[in-house]
Amino acid sequence: MINFDDLYSVLTAVVPLYVTMFLAYASVKWNIFSPQQCGGINRFVAIFAVPLLSFEFISRINPYKMNLKFIAADGVSKILTLIVLFLWTNLSKNGSLDWAITMFSLSTLPNTLVMGIPLLKSMYGDDKESIMVQAVVLQCIIWYTLLLFLFEYREAKNLILTSGGGNNISKSNSNNSSISNSQRNDESFCVVQERVERSTRNEDDIVNVIQSLNRVAPAIATAVDDDKRELHLFIWRCRCCSSPSACEQSVEVRNRENEKAESVEEPNIIESPGSPSMLKKILKMVCFKLVKNPNSYASILGLSWALASCRWGIKKPQILENSVTILSDAGLGMAMFSLGLFMASQPKLIACGNKLAAYGMVARFVAGPAVMAVASIGVGLRGTILQVSIVQASLPQGIVPFVFAREYNLHPDVLSTAVIFGMIISLPITMLYYILLGL
Amino acid sequence: MINFDDLYSVLTAVVPLYVTMFLAYASVKWNIFSPQQCGGINRFVAIFAVPLLSFEFISRINPYKMNLKFIAADGVSKILTLIVLFLWTNLSKNGSLDWAITMFSLSTLPNTLVMGIPLLKSMYGDDKESIMVQAVVLQCIIWYTLLLFLFEYREAKNLILTSGGGNNISKSNSNNSSISNSQRNDESFCVVQERVERSTRNEDDIVNVIQSLNRVAPAIATAVDDDKRELHLFIWRCRCCSSPSACEQSVEVRNRENEKAESVEEPNIIESPGSPSMLKKILKMVCFKLVKNPNSYASILGLSWALASCRWGIKKPQILENSVTILSDAGLGMAMFSLGLFMASQPKLIACGNKLAAYGMVARFVAGPAVMAVASIGVGLRGTILQVSIVQASLPQGIVPFVFAREYNLHPDVLSTAVIFGMIISLPITMLYYILLGL
Repeated sequence: MINFDDLYSVLTAVVPLYVTMFLAYASVKWNIFSPQQCGGINRFVAIFAVPLLSFEFISRINPYKMNLKFIAADGVSKILTLIVLFLWTNLSKNGSLDWAITMFSLSTLPNTLVMGIPLLKSMYGDDKESIMVQAVVLQCIIWYTLLLFLFEYREAKNLILTSGGGNNISKSNSNNSSISNSQRNDESFCVVQERVERSTRNEDDIVNVIQSLNRVAPAIATAVDDDKRELHLFIWRCRCCSSPSACEQSVEVRNRENEKAESVEEPNIIESPGSPSMLKKILKMVCFKLVKNPNSYASILGLSWALASCRWGIKKPQILENSVTILSDAGLGMAMFSLGLFMASQPKLIACGNKLAAYGMVARFVAGPAVMAVASIGVGLRGTILQVSIVQASLPQGIVPFVFAREYNLHPDVLSTAVIFGMIISLPITMLYYILLGL
Repeated sequence: MINFDDLYSVLTAVVPLYVTMFLAYASVKWNIFSPQQCGGINRFVAIFAVPLLSFEFISRINPYKMNLKFIAADGVSKILTLIVLFLWTNLSKNGSLDWAITMFSLSTLPNTLVMGIPLLKSMYGDDKESIMVQAVVLQCIIWYTLLLFLFEYREAKNLILTSGGGNNISKSNSNNSSISNSQRNDESFCVVQERVERSTRNEDDIVNVIQSLNRVAPAIATAVDDDKRELHLFIWRCRCCSSPSACEQSVEVRNRENEKAESVEEPNIIESPGSPSMLKKILKMVCFKLVKNPNSYASILGLSWALASCRWGIKKPQILENSVTILSDAGLGMAMFSLGLFMASQPKLIACGNKLAAYGMVARFVAGPAVMAVASIGVGLRGTILQVSIVQASLPQGIVPFVFAREYNLHPDVLSTAVIFGMIISLPITMLYYILLGL
């Protein structure tokens, strides 16, 4: 039975997260930070604070003493969801790959690192922290990679549908000044172009999101300004650009992404998205994205360190430890601050309309925990770990799936609503789960 | 006698500070952050992280158990320095108020909060932390206020010298469209204008420093962009502006500062800077600046809380405590990060020339500790506290005096060199003091 003291100690851990978020929200509304300045803070969070925070948590676990049942429950729940969504996509008339991916993000990928660890620790004690860290590790290493794969698979499928197969796009890349007269080629080129642009966008994570969603003009002005020096490399134009400034942007992106893109874009698009060589290309693109994401390094380095240190009993030298914690200590607060900045930059809290928002909330706060409960009981979890497992599934939406959704332009409004509106309503919902499960 | 373990534990505390600074330095050099984005991080540090960090430290001390001898030594050393500088200004042929102010900053105001607390704690143990916090409190509440007073006194003096007395500048403020034909009036107006602009700059602390010192153009572009909406309030031009864009800037500044400036600028400049009514005006300006500085609030609130909590044995509610620490935990790392960003934004590490830099270093690392040693021994400090007192005087230059110097345009290059170059050479010097005093 949960008493008032338990509840108070949970509030003690959670309210500061919301205070920080609100502070950021208010400072944008009061014009303390310009959009560019918000971009700087978000970029700091994406590149330094959060990866160092993940590293710090992951490197402290004992990978030889993982809770295998919890890991199994987590895996089973996600695979169950995937199977259901796969069947729906292929067998139902309403089924679509697009919505399957979004539903997967919504129902299985909560915010474990920033919200989960402090919340679950305050609810179930310090020793349950390691369960949450295990969830973080699995999410970073397995589930985000799978999600990226799904996005890239969809991208490849759409590219084939758009180009209708048979256009060798790499030709138009190698020949800068001559542009094919075929309208179709232009279009498919645009898709590739967009794709390359999007893969650049990945670098900036949530930064560009904030800059571009709300106040596009100054953000573009800044980008053009900052990167002018790269422009001289070569000038390369396409007919599909709607305005000269859009074209300039493409040129820049092209310049920066030139070599990388070459390796990725040799479509020979006659193949189906499921063919082995297409799969190889998709996997290549996934790797390319993972290599550019600081969180990948944080997870892999953290896990490697954990494996090595537990095997050979090595400890991090204190100087190294302190060098990481000096910035990772900033991670939690800064991540919440960044979320508040993002919230304030959105024109509406519910961007996707009330109906979609309601579906999203059901997926996040009802379907997700329900599937997790079934899977957990199925693999034999009982007692506190079962409670932890269900409550962590009812946390607000994770940020990374939103960043991907934005990057691939797949229902970003739904995911943004899930993150923002989800944060607001998650506290009572998560507390309700906590109280009900504690009865 | 200091052994290797002692030294290692000090390095353990200090090296991470430098690692963080270097990380920031490298990320600017690698173009990870644009100047605007650096501005965002610096602004976050200036408005939230550092004030919350001061509050957190100050609110934890026991003001009824301050180390009175240390406080006396600190006061005596600063007053001694002031007396020497006052005599030099008034009696020596080479003496000048300008250099007296700069020498006072250099020799008596080290970086106690960010560098001092972690360093001294690692050298002399956790219980000596409170000594450093006391130094922080005194600096924030007394010495920065005095420094501001000196700057404003000099400003008033210069204003009188420039206007030659007798011009009523407030006239040109109240009458927007008509500009006097007198060249002198234009000039004195420019001084006021510059002053108002500078007082705006205060808001942005180190932000604008970074933006304006190094890459002026994009910063102005952004500022104009961001604040366009304020421009319509009224258009007001002066002949002294060198370009239309400079004029637009003045207009904006004028708009924002309109009311505040009115209260401040009624010079009736016939008086001498030492007259009571002039002193009153200077004090008014000092208050106006203090009111705009988040650190003032942090110190006063922190001290008030400390007084109340120690008197009546109240404890901060855990929710409040956590709401502060979630961001103040970020303070140390973020402050060092911000310092690294600043360093990278400077065209040179030694901005003021080698000769001035050498004088500055002597003032900071030799004269400062020497005067402190004399004062400390004079008031009867002995043993560890004497060592603490001397070592803390040999810390690198504080940031706030640099921000003031930049704001009042008084040897900002010398102070910038003291901050940047001082950081680099301070580690061996401070360690040397530590080892020598420990013999």
